[in-house]
Amino acid sequence: MDIQRPYLLFIGDARDDLAAKTASGILDWRRDWCLGQFRLPGCNADLKIPDLTIAQAREKGVRTLIIGVANAGGVIPDNWTTTIVEALDAGMDVASGLHTQLGSIPAVAEAARRNGRQLFDVRHNTMTFATGKGTKRPGKRVLTVGTDCSAGKKYTALAIEAELLKRGLKADFRATGQTGIFISGRGVAVDAVVADFISGAAEWISPANDPDHWDVIEGQGSLFHASFAGVSLGLLHGSQPDAIVMCHEPTRTTMRGLPDSTIPDLQACIDANIAMGRLTNPAIHCVGVAVNTSKLAPEAALDYCGGVSRRLGLPCVDPVAWGVGPIVDRLLATT
Amino acid sequence: MDIQRPYLLFIGDARDDLAAKTASGILDWRRDWCLGQFRLPGCNADLKIPDLTIAQAREKGVRTLIIGVANAGGVIPDNWTTTIVEALDAGMDVASGLHTQLGSIPAVAEAARRNGRQLFDVRHNTMTFATGKGTKRPGKRVLTVGTDCSAGKKYTALAIEAELLKRGLKADFRATGQTGIFISGRGVAVDAVVADFISGAAEWISPANDPDHWDVIEGQGSLFHASFAGVSLGLLHGSQPDAIVMCHEPTRTTMRGLPDSTIPDLQACIDANIAMGRLTNPAIHCVGVAVNTSKLAPEAALDYCGGVSRRLGLPCVDPVAWGVGPIVDRLLATT
Repeated sequence: MDIQRPYLLFIGDARDDLAAKTASGILDWRRDWCLGQFRLPGCNADLKIPDLTIAQAREKGVRTLIIGVANAGGVIPDNWTTTIVEALDAGMDVASGLHTQLGSIPAVAEAARRNGRQLFDVRHNTMTFATGKGTKRPGKRVLTVGTDCSAGKKYTALAIEAELLKRGLKADFRATGQTGIFISGRGVAVDAVVADFISGAAEWISPANDPDHWDVIEGQGSLFHASFAGVSLGLLHGSQPDAIVMCHEPTRTTMRGLPDSTIPDLQACIDANIAMGRLTNPAIHCVGVAVNTSKLAPEAALDYCGGVSRRLGLPCVDPVAWGVGPIVDRLLATT
Repeated sequence: MDIQRPYLLFIGDARDDLAAKTASGILDWRRDWCLGQFRLPGCNADLKIPDLTIAQAREKGVRTLIIGVANAGGVIPDNWTTTIVEALDAGMDVASGLHTQLGSIPAVAEAARRNGRQLFDVRHNTMTFATGKGTKRPGKRVLTVGTDCSAGKKYTALAIEAELLKRGLKADFRATGQTGIFISGRGVAVDAVVADFISGAAEWISPANDPDHWDVIEGQGSLFHASFAGVSLGLLHGSQPDAIVMCHEPTRTTMRGLPDSTIPDLQACIDANIAMGRLTNPAIHCVGVAVNTSKLAPEAALDYCGGVSRRLGLPCVDPVAWGVGPIVDRLLATT
């Protein structure tokens, strides 16, 4: 899977900005790849980039229409089909992270065939992987892990990639989820892989590389999330990270989607990841804690992160508010 | 999935007894369900049960033809098709654990449709599961876990089920792999489930039950197997076992399929399963070690198991040679 850029971001008739968060996530990290937005009548979201028709987008060289909007059920409503077909007829590929597969819509499948274009359904996985082998491979790897789902693992990984590149180092963000795949143009939705191949997919995502090259791998779930820990463990084993960064949302009291489960202790969560990760990389260690402090007042945020840092002896930052400099310092000093 | 019995065991043109090990595994544990074997010319295996034609099997009341033979690649060769179609025409269902799906063979798909019969491809999973929730449910559960793959987890679980039933207790073996599914008539091949639903499938396999009922769940893989640990962890979380039994093959020096990986220490492997399993059942504990001593001399086997038992303070037996009585004693005393 290699999604061609630049992109036109389709946000359809999104009822608010939140419904367009896939598109805004791409825009946050890959502004240069996004030439415009496409909105249908009734759209209440605005990405604040130029509105382009399909013809205008084609003119500007857009290669892929990205369906950057989510809705309940993950379906592709009938009123989107005309635009999708028009994009295919204009020579673009189309990529979607929705549950409905693009190719399951006859008019879309037919237009793709007619124009020899590709349809990318990044939530579905059609690749065949080998099972994971656990064999040490060259290159350096850092994996973002979490106390819970949706704790900032993608954002933190992207911030680390950006910081490494800013320092002139070789680094690639490795996507394991839908939005991440749009942001990197490639990757595998690891949670959609058949269970036997989780670690194998993670090995495929972050293959052998130069000894001084960093793969910055987007984590998924949490070893302490009763729904998804198997995915997290396979990803930990397949990534064989030299270092992990623990991501945490400090105001959450129960695990996402599991109202009866409490959030694990930070140190216990780090310890479990280290203990299990040693299987494929005995040198694994934690280089920092990334905290989403958006729900704390600025002073409380500083206070919280300072306390974590003293208690755990690790850099602790909010990657959005303050960047990941101290974590990357520690990463480079210890790996 | 509910495979109707009794069975006719199809072993085709198996080149030796090992190629028919799925069939012999079913026979070991469910002799009463197996009315006969069906062999093609050139078959070198013999299950030592009556050879039946399809017509004879139908006469005796067989409900399902089980493809009980494995071959390289897991394909269904052309020369099996006639028998499979004949069975469907005689009103039987057909079940297979091979990679090739029965329904992908046009003549077989057509015969199933024509006769309104079911095709079971137990290696493939077509069910939809909810994600695991980790909520405590009534009933007692014991899970077999392992230091490695193919360490006796299925056999040990079946032996525990048999011992519990012998003692007049309520128990059900819960199958998570192909042969286990044939043996129980139902179950889910957990390694074939989409990664997001591993623990959810395990919850589905061992649902809420009477407080004095035992689910004896067949484990898969090992937390220390770099290829499959994600499956093992999801199964551990979804099963939420009150007790685990550690299965071990003492003569193996490297992990199955991973020549560079050593076998974990027994105590470390028990500790890791307990630590991770606490997430969904804080009462989890280990009630014994099941050792496959088939490659040891009888005296060495006794010596080995005695040593493990003293060192770990747990019953340690070869379930095949000596039965699982001491493990079930401990299970009932502590749960």
